[in-house]
Amino acid sequence: MNKRFITFEGGEGSGKTTIINRLVKDLEEKGIKVLKSREPGGSKISEQIRNVILGVENVKMDYITEALLYAASRRQHLEEIVKPALNEGYLVICDRYIDSSLAYQGYARGLGIDEVYNLNYYATGGLLPDLTIFIDVIPEEGLSRISKNNRSKDRLDLEQMDFHHRVREGYLELVRRFPERIKIVDGNGNLEEVYLAVKKIVFENI
Amino acid sequence: MNKRFITFEGGEGSGKTTIINRLVKDLEEKGIKVLKSREPGGSKISEQIRNVILGVENVKMDYITEALLYAASRRQHLEEIVKPALNEGYLVICDRYIDSSLAYQGYARGLGIDEVYNLNYYATGGLLPDLTIFIDVIPEEGLSRISKNNRSKDRLDLEQMDFHHRVREGYLELVRRFPERIKIVDGNGNLEEVYLAVKKIVFENI
Repeated sequence: MNKRFITFEGGEGSGKTTIINRLVKDLEEKGIKVLKSREPGGSKISEQIRNVILGVENVKMDYITEALLYAASRRQHLEEIVKPALNEGYLVICDRYIDSSLAYQGYARGLGIDEVYNLNYYATGGLLPDLTIFIDVIPEEGLSRISKNNRSKDRLDLEQMDFHHRVREGYLELVRRFPERIKIVDGNGNLEEVYLAVKKIVFENI
Repeated sequence: MNKRFITFEGGEGSGKTTIINRLVKDLEEKGIKVLKSREPGGSKISEQIRNVILGVENVKMDYITEALLYAASRRQHLEEIVKPALNEGYLVICDRYIDSSLAYQGYARGLGIDEVYNLNYYATGGLLPDLTIFIDVIPEEGLSRISKNNRSKDRLDLEQMDFHHRVREGYLELVRRFPERIKIVDGNGNLEEVYLAVKKIVFENI
């Protein structure tokens, strides 16, 4: 029952990064070998792909092109970074993975969850996470956090609010579809409470 | 029976470019509106993707990543360039399309023709060419033409000779699978003869 490949999912400003950083520290203090990553995560090829996806000038990008590029970046990151770490016995914690494509491209963009799942199933050779934690934050709250932090906005942050609501609906649909794999955590409360809820789930599953 | 979307396929140094240029000239002299293209073909996004694919430094590129990137570039080129031209009544002649991925990634790289077909079927929304002409040239001949022309080599040209032979076998397999759509032309002879054979097929089908 050991979960070795754990992914975090959530909308913009859901606090994933902060939570993952604390979690990694707590895991390492327990003597667990952890690889923390996020696509493109140190793969130069994935990084070049990512630059194409997020380029603010690429407004003409077709939604299926976008889904294919995410799948390509994911594949490369998986082969170069994630699989070698899993093979060396690391616990791998990844900020976003297949469910981001299902929620953003499949559901919010309207490409279809099944279609984007099939594409990513091919891209990943069917390697799903052992455990996925979805930090559920109301979009208005998430985006206001981003504004406060003055994090620079990329092409996706500039989408309409309606899009961010559809992303959230997409994630909630995924929780219904994959109840065994995806655990939902209410991320609207204070960070300490959210973190403790996440930590409990992770430590019960590794 | 009018064929509006015609693609050319062949290994390195098969003479496609020269043949297409002559063909376009002859078609235009007949008063036919022709759009000549090749991926990335003027799509800025496809061009950025192409740069990632062909970067000589990207030696760590996984084969499935490569197939996904070609599919992404193809999708964008199709949506931005090919479909609008077809809708405006142009005859579209494209230097390489789906069959390149089937021969290079599907067959020669060993990813499987069916798997790469399914991926590209998704990427193109099932838009296959009406007619495809495969210029069949023995790899040794094709590569010696490239050397003579001093065309600069990209990452694919640097592959071993064995790879180019597999590409050719892949194309021959595609001719067997899609006999209605793909016509084979022997490209080893002198260019005048090759061109006349191509011209005959095209003018009989448009």
